[in-house]
Amino acid sequence: RDRKSQMAEESHRQDSAYLLIFIMLLTLTILTIWLFKHRRVRFLHETGLAMIYGLLVGVILRFGIHVPQSMSDVILGCAVNASPATLLVNVSGRFYEYTLKGEVTPGSGHQDDEMLRKVTFDPEVFFNILLPPIIFHAGYSLKRRHFFRNIGSILAYAFLGTVISCFVIGLIMYGFVSFMKVVGQLGGDFYFTDCLFFGAIVSATDPVTVLAIFNELKVDVDLYALLFGESVLNDAVAIVLSSSIVAYQPAGDNSHSFEAMAVLKSLGIFVGVFSGSFALGVATGVMTFTKLRDFPLLETALFFLMSWSTFLLAEACGFTGVVAVLFCGMTQAHYTFNNLSPESQDRTKQLFELLNFLAENFIFSYMGLTLFSFQSHVFNLLFIIGAFVAIFLGRAANIYPLSFLLNLSRRNKIGSNFQHVMMFAGLRGAMTFALSIRDTATYARQMMFSTTLLIVFFTVWVCGGGTMPMLSFMSIPVGVDSDQENSVSDFNFEQIWYKKGNLRVNDTKQESAWPFRIWYNFDHNYLKPLLTHSGPPLTATMPACCGPLARCLTSPQAYEVWTELLRYLFQELSSCPCSTCFHSYFCI
Amino acid sequence: RDRKSQMAEESHRQDSAYLLIFIMLLTLTILTIWLFKHRRVRFLHETGLAMIYGLLVGVILRFGIHVPQSMSDVILGCAVNASPATLLVNVSGRFYEYTLKGEVTPGSGHQDDEMLRKVTFDPEVFFNILLPPIIFHAGYSLKRRHFFRNIGSILAYAFLGTVISCFVIGLIMYGFVSFMKVVGQLGGDFYFTDCLFFGAIVSATDPVTVLAIFNELKVDVDLYALLFGESVLNDAVAIVLSSSIVAYQPAGDNSHSFEAMAVLKSLGIFVGVFSGSFALGVATGVMTFTKLRDFPLLETALFFLMSWSTFLLAEACGFTGVVAVLFCGMTQAHYTFNNLSPESQDRTKQLFELLNFLAENFIFSYMGLTLFSFQSHVFNLLFIIGAFVAIFLGRAANIYPLSFLLNLSRRNKIGSNFQHVMMFAGLRGAMTFALSIRDTATYARQMMFSTTLLIVFFTVWVCGGGTMPMLSFMSIPVGVDSDQENSVSDFNFEQIWYKKGNLRVNDTKQESAWPFRIWYNFDHNYLKPLLTHSGPPLTATMPACCGPLARCLTSPQAYEVWTELLRYLFQELSSCPCSTCFHSYFCI
Repeated sequence: RDRKSQMAEESHRQDSAYLLIFIMLLTLTILTIWLFKHRRVRFLHETGLAMIYGLLVGVILRFGIHVPQSMSDVILGCAVNASPATLLVNVSGRFYEYTLKGEVTPGSGHQDDEMLRKVTFDPEVFFNILLPPIIFHAGYSLKRRHFFRNIGSILAYAFLGTVISCFVIGLIMYGFVSFMKVVGQLGGDFYFTDCLFFGAIVSATDPVTVLAIFNELKVDVDLYALLFGESVLNDAVAIVLSSSIVAYQPAGDNSHSFEAMAVLKSLGIFVGVFSGSFALGVATGVMTFTKLRDFPLLETALFFLMSWSTFLLAEACGFTGVVAVLFCGMTQAHYTFNNLSPESQDRTKQLFELLNFLAENFIFSYMGLTLFSFQSHVFNLLFIIGAFVAIFLGRAANIYPLSFLLNLSRRNKIGSNFQHVMMFAGLRGAMTFALSIRDTATYARQMMFSTTLLIVFFTVWVCGGGTMPMLSFMSIPVGVDSDQENSVSDFNFEQIWYKKGNLRVNDTKQESAWPFRIWYNFDHNYLKPLLTHSGPPLTATMPACCGPLARCLTSPQAYEVWTELLRYLFQELSSCPCSTCFHSYFCI
Repeated sequence: RDRKSQMAEESHRQDSAYLLIFIMLLTLTILTIWLFKHRRVRFLHETGLAMIYGLLVGVILRFGIHVPQSMSDVILGCAVNASPATLLVNVSGRFYEYTLKGEVTPGSGHQDDEMLRKVTFDPEVFFNILLPPIIFHAGYSLKRRHFFRNIGSILAYAFLGTVISCFVIGLIMYGFVSFMKVVGQLGGDFYFTDCLFFGAIVSATDPVTVLAIFNELKVDVDLYALLFGESVLNDAVAIVLSSSIVAYQPAGDNSHSFEAMAVLKSLGIFVGVFSGSFALGVATGVMTFTKLRDFPLLETALFFLMSWSTFLLAEACGFTGVVAVLFCGMTQAHYTFNNLSPESQDRTKQLFELLNFLAENFIFSYMGLTLFSFQSHVFNLLFIIGAFVAIFLGRAANIYPLSFLLNLSRRNKIGSNFQHVMMFAGLRGAMTFALSIRDTATYARQMMFSTTLLIVFFTVWVCGGGTMPMLSFMSIPVGVDSDQENSVSDFNFEQIWYKKGNLRVNDTKQESAWPFRIWYNFDHNYLKPLLTHSGPPLTATMPACCGPLARCLTSPQAYEVWTELLRYLFQELSSCPCSTCFHSYFCI
């Protein structure tokens, strides 16, 4: 027992040291980011930087350090004919439980692999710990006014565009793979469904670098909203799409041709999982309107726990937690946020900002590290070239035709320079990486993973770094006064309307298509008053016959806010001669 | 492969569901806390509440739900003659890696155990994830002025008192155990070192309930400082003491008698580990003075990462991470905090407050759960009675004699009513639980764990709930105006000194013993100016001969603050007739 506890302690010390490497990496990244921000360096974003540091540490771990094989790893060959998840081992009468960690390739190299294997995380860590805060933050910090103004186009790019991109990339890759098979460059199986899967995972864009620069330079808000909205939603589409494709893949792995039934089934899974996750996220997002205003700590804790439980609930129900968390974040920003005390509004914003920052930089530095620490890379030049061609064409097939179609109905057209920027800003990031590392068991998946890594590196460094020249080359105006509200406090009466001298006509409604106008009216007149303390009380918006119901559903706070607002508006607008601006205040 | 991934998915769904149970528990706790705070209920603290909910869920899981054994757990008997940490299994040519999870008692009950085992965490989770934020927060939120004023007494209670308590409890328990052996009530081995170990783990007090009430009622600040300071430091003492005792325990487990060498070795380990952890914590705490004031997000992230890396570094070096983190927190509050931007000061405070809140409530609800979900409880009535008697006497042997000795030299005596309250407030909490669950392999440890659980329940509910009656019975004055600074912004020039009309003579120095006066002068004149932007610049405090050195070590910001301060002081004090108050401003 004594020797064993010593071994456990030794192993614990090593684990701490390995985790320390990552923390140090992040610390180094932060310090360099600070230096860059201080000096206003813009050609390299923090994510690109994190990758570089990760790469360096990966090289050092791979070639620099040789940790002698520790004694904690006595290995026993034990021949059985199955690999269950749990193994009970009978050691002279006492039973020990072992859990399956994964398949390994034993051999002479095992000693050296030890350390590299230790710095390799369980891929599920990305899906269950690191992605949720990133995606939630994206939903929670969405600039909703501009998002809703462009919602039609965003949905088109995100849904239709991602599916187009997935199939275009899939088909091109299938062509390349078939060619490789003929030439004899293919070292293993690669089916059509693998190609589609690859298409799905590399269709998730992550223009975090580009958007950071946009934000700093105050580039056109519509372009920002289009890019941001698309990238947030297409993450959700890509994750559900890829899992539907995996579900479609028959057990035999040998279907080259399409079967109508299987495609329909796949489509059914897509629609089912997506709408299920959506509904769950929205439902829990709406549920968390809190009345704990006096205790910001409790409020913040509750907010955090509810967001997390949305993720867990979705996973437990077989939906996609990440998608649920995205819509939960969007819903909470729209409704719950208004009910929080001002202190909690700050706290939650800052908390998720921090979590997002840490998780994002961790993923990117891990990406850099993994290029050298991952043990089963399959780099195939032809495949890599094919992939780069395919993502370029896939992105083009998404942006240009859809923009053309959208421009037919849009009032403010998406200019060709905007289209080129959107084409250029198709960076791949955390989601693509997480999806590709999730399963690296087969030859096809290993090749995809290695190629995906290169795609991420290339797009983040080259496209990310080239944003500034691209903007000036495309003559996109910068320094535009965006008339932007605070990121998450969009429709908050107190913050927008009470600001003296900042009264402005809300143009969201006028610019949107009619289905959204109906939704706006419903949201503004019924949902917001019901779920938040802001907006007009239900008694003012519901038909007169529902008076008693409206009265009992309206909180005293809502009345207060409303009365205050009315008093202020009348006072302020009594001096304004135009009657239209008066009306516009009653229809956000 | 397909069946296996299905099994993995099933298992993932179950894991999510189990984690969801905990999140729901926490959510429920928060909502009830809110209700209690709203209604000003004080007889039950949130930690006590969390335990009750945990208990209820434990009962439901144990007796209410029977999850059918999932197919993911096919169990294979595989007879080998060792139990290594890693097992390679040869399944028809392919190798799978398994990691040791622990010993199990197989049998007919295994099916039902499945779920209970799943809700049981790896004990190391407590030490590596849940305790660090709690302990760091304790150090970071220490009210340092009152702490330093009473530092002599606090150190006496924490170091001397904990050692006394440990040995008293150990000796009493050894008596009880010997008696049990004679009576035939002992079902396994129980050595003297086990008794001492038990003494060490139950000597860590955690009066969080009591302090919450003190805070709310504004009880005397010195009593608060004594209790809080003692409980923070004796956690550190208990953790190092218990690990030294384990290290002392010879491999044979058969030493009834003391050996001088072994005791010395144990003492050496204690001093070495404690001072090592202390030095490391202070060193990294001092190191993190940041200059990223313009970017609160980066600053907060860096602060968080540095605190965490202190923990990991200490663990990797073989010191105690929790102790290092405690002193890191105290150092950072004293030095680094002053360098942070005001926004980061809020952010870090709020972040660690939230983490502390979540971790603490999680541990307490897990405690409640574990009373029913833990599989190897050993409840022994005699041992339990003995333990309760022992902790009572141990606490008494700590408080009363030490208070008597301390009162000999203290100017403001610790009254007998204060002593009774300190005696009564010896609650056991998170640290005792974490230490006792860490190793539950032997009969002795299992009995300790079960008994410890009961002690925690009893003290939190009875002593915690009885604080209010106790205070009025002891006629402790409440509603005392504590003249308290903001918890973490103690010596911050801007916040204390600039407040007009709130000028006060700092009395810390006058009341402390001479070693601390020397330390104060050194800290104020050299360390603070060197490490922070507040305090007088080094050029004003260092001897004239060191002028050039002082100039190059002083930051421009410190000059600015100092000049500003001087201008303000002269202006303010020119109207004050007494010359002493003027002087007192130059010697915090």
